[in-house]
Amino acid sequence: MLAQPTTPVETELFARCERARGAADRLAETTRETRDAALQAMGEALIAKAAVILEANALDVERETAAGMSAPLVDRLRLTEERIRALVDSLEVVRALEDPVGRVRRGSTLPNGLRLRQVTVPLGVIACVYEARPNVTVDIVALALKSGNAVLLRGGSAARETNTVLIEVLRQAVAESGVDADAVVGLDDLGRDGVQALFGARGHVDLLIPRGGRELIRRVTEEARVPVIATGEGNVHIVLDRGADEAQAVEILLNAKTQRTGVCNAAETLLVLDGAEAAPAALRALVDAGVTLHADERARELVAASERVVPATEEDWETEYLNMDLAVRTVDSLEEAIAHIRRYSTGHTEAILTDSTRNAELFQRRVDSAAVVVNASTRFTDGGQFGLGAEVGISTDRLHARGPMGVDELTTTKWLVTGDGHVRP
Amino acid sequence: MLAQPTTPVETELFARCERARGAADRLAETTRETRDAALQAMGEALIAKAAVILEANALDVERETAAGMSAPLVDRLRLTEERIRALVDSLEVVRALEDPVGRVRRGSTLPNGLRLRQVTVPLGVIACVYEARPNVTVDIVALALKSGNAVLLRGGSAARETNTVLIEVLRQAVAESGVDADAVVGLDDLGRDGVQALFGARGHVDLLIPRGGRELIRRVTEEARVPVIATGEGNVHIVLDRGADEAQAVEILLNAKTQRTGVCNAAETLLVLDGAEAAPAALRALVDAGVTLHADERARELVAASERVVPATEEDWETEYLNMDLAVRTVDSLEEAIAHIRRYSTGHTEAILTDSTRNAELFQRRVDSAAVVVNASTRFTDGGQFGLGAEVGISTDRLHARGPMGVDELTTTKWLVTGDGHVRP
Repeated sequence: MLAQPTTPVETELFARCERARGAADRLAETTRETRDAALQAMGEALIAKAAVILEANALDVERETAAGMSAPLVDRLRLTEERIRALVDSLEVVRALEDPVGRVRRGSTLPNGLRLRQVTVPLGVIACVYEARPNVTVDIVALALKSGNAVLLRGGSAARETNTVLIEVLRQAVAESGVDADAVVGLDDLGRDGVQALFGARGHVDLLIPRGGRELIRRVTEEARVPVIATGEGNVHIVLDRGADEAQAVEILLNAKTQRTGVCNAAETLLVLDGAEAAPAALRALVDAGVTLHADERARELVAASERVVPATEEDWETEYLNMDLAVRTVDSLEEAIAHIRRYSTGHTEAILTDSTRNAELFQRRVDSAAVVVNASTRFTDGGQFGLGAEVGISTDRLHARGPMGVDELTTTKWLVTGDGHVRP
Repeated sequence: MLAQPTTPVETELFARCERARGAADRLAETTRETRDAALQAMGEALIAKAAVILEANALDVERETAAGMSAPLVDRLRLTEERIRALVDSLEVVRALEDPVGRVRRGSTLPNGLRLRQVTVPLGVIACVYEARPNVTVDIVALALKSGNAVLLRGGSAARETNTVLIEVLRQAVAESGVDADAVVGLDDLGRDGVQALFGARGHVDLLIPRGGRELIRRVTEEARVPVIATGEGNVHIVLDRGADEAQAVEILLNAKTQRTGVCNAAETLLVLDGAEAAPAALRALVDAGVTLHADERARELVAASERVVPATEEDWETEYLNMDLAVRTVDSLEEAIAHIRRYSTGHTEAILTDSTRNAELFQRRVDSAAVVVNASTRFTDGGQFGLGAEVGISTDRLHARGPMGVDELTTTKWLVTGDGHVRP
């Protein structure tokens, strides 16, 4: 049931998919040794080719700066020698992970003697559509190859020079270590039509992972005819309970909102329990740090008037700002906070700051998000922080993978059944 | 991002979904004790109300028999006291399973002291569209409630009287044991428009499981805007190797093809290694048992001419007969058999009959299906046989669940993160 091409771009895309399929078939036959060698070769090549990578990156940075890209986005786009070394470090972490393929998840011998084993196997051909952070290219390739998958990459157009060079460097490196170059396939040259063609690549692609904002996720979930796991949309809430420690609350809120604003695990809405003792200090600290509060009336009474304190509207509850803005709403009860979260959350990460074990337990039980955090920053929802080495994305879907997707999330299983002439009575 | 209704049927369906959502929220708060009590109450109610269930079933059987339904399909439709007792037995097996909810899948304390636990939680609201076997209704409700989910049921129209009574009996039973009646919601009265409305019920339904033939699966995968796991399409292959034991091969092939023909794990194509010693006896036994062989030229030479041996066409390789027909193709190598399977299989179950450990290993490694069987009947790919108590369906998809779907496959996970003022450096 392979989709048939109807446009030249589909013809080209499906041909690349079939080459990736061949590479995936051969990858599925490799041992950990071969796949780990490919990761090591990738790391060595990134160091050896750092100059040419940085040169290409400088072109992207120059073009986008001239085109008026904001400073934080340019910073995300920029590679440096230090950042390349950090990429190599995370390659090493992924390489050192246990082999995710060939693990026996369940197994038993049935009363009739039939032997059952459920073993992990690669998913096959994975496609990722992601934003303009070139380091993501390396992370995704590392996770895909470690788990025995071929991968198709469509990066942000702002990073096109960098990604073109990176993909070429990685293809050469894996080929030299005995893995097909076509296990790593770039799609940037196919443009937006290439993304559209991916949506219809049924049978050619086993999993499409869009990593990005609401508009990309909406398009993919509406239009894709291939299996999809949506990642990266984070309308993240923090609840400030009565009795919460003031110093901790201030520190966690500043970290969650301001440490890095353009990321999916940054806080976007603060829900303040009416009467929470730490609220005034927390709101003041946020304003002092440069955060603009979109606050309801009761919250505005807790903080000195300022151009950085504005009235909240309904739209604020729905907004993933990805900048130095924060919605603030006052609630009368934890139940009301949970109801707000159920209505507006994207299911990524929510946190509570509380000194009550009972409220912490209630919150973790009732809030239905990929990560539910007590007394810590929401910024921890991250494959690297969780010890996965890196992440393909952070799933906000419920099927197959939820939260940071590492190598285990890029496998599926099959049942191996072995008998000796067994028939069903 | 709840889909908004645009037709009266959608308005009614989405309203039922929201009632099911409320029931699911409350179910997620229940302990195993409550959910097990609901399963026990279901079993008792099925026994107590057997007469009224059988009466409704007699109406379905009578109407469909008059309408010309084939004898095997009428047999699938028919309930008897014995079949009701068997249903209650499988309810008991499901009830005795370990609680699939609240299990810690992974967990660790990070070097910084942050505590991580990945725990299983119910999926939420599940919808099933299935064929005219009323026992499936009971199996699905049992698995859904055991795993803390609410369930929407759309059965085959041929079983409508039976399903209406069954669902009413089950709703009453669970309500008396403290679970919301709306954890079990019938959709048969909404007709085909109700199925179409389900496809668009984004946000209202967490998982749609179509269980049935190629046409249903094709429609769902083309049209559904809700997460889907396709189940039940089984173009099942058996490879007969050289050196395979003749008596075993005959017995397994007869079992896989003829024991029950209308099921997804029955064999549909036999791939004979050229020169396989057991082939003549196996083909003869199949013909003698009433099987019509659609055989290629070399295979036809192995068996006496008969009206039950006809030439195979390309179409035969693609056909899931679900009757007493079997495609037979001769291959020169195991590689050729695997290539045929890759091209034509639906990814359900494939088996090899062999005396070679090397070929058995190669087959299990290279064939990429939900179940890969050595020297046993393909009929074992079944939730009951695998010890899952029952099954919601047999997934031929790769994401989330593959093969028989029991209670574990109806859960997802969330990460619980607990700190003491942790912030990200």
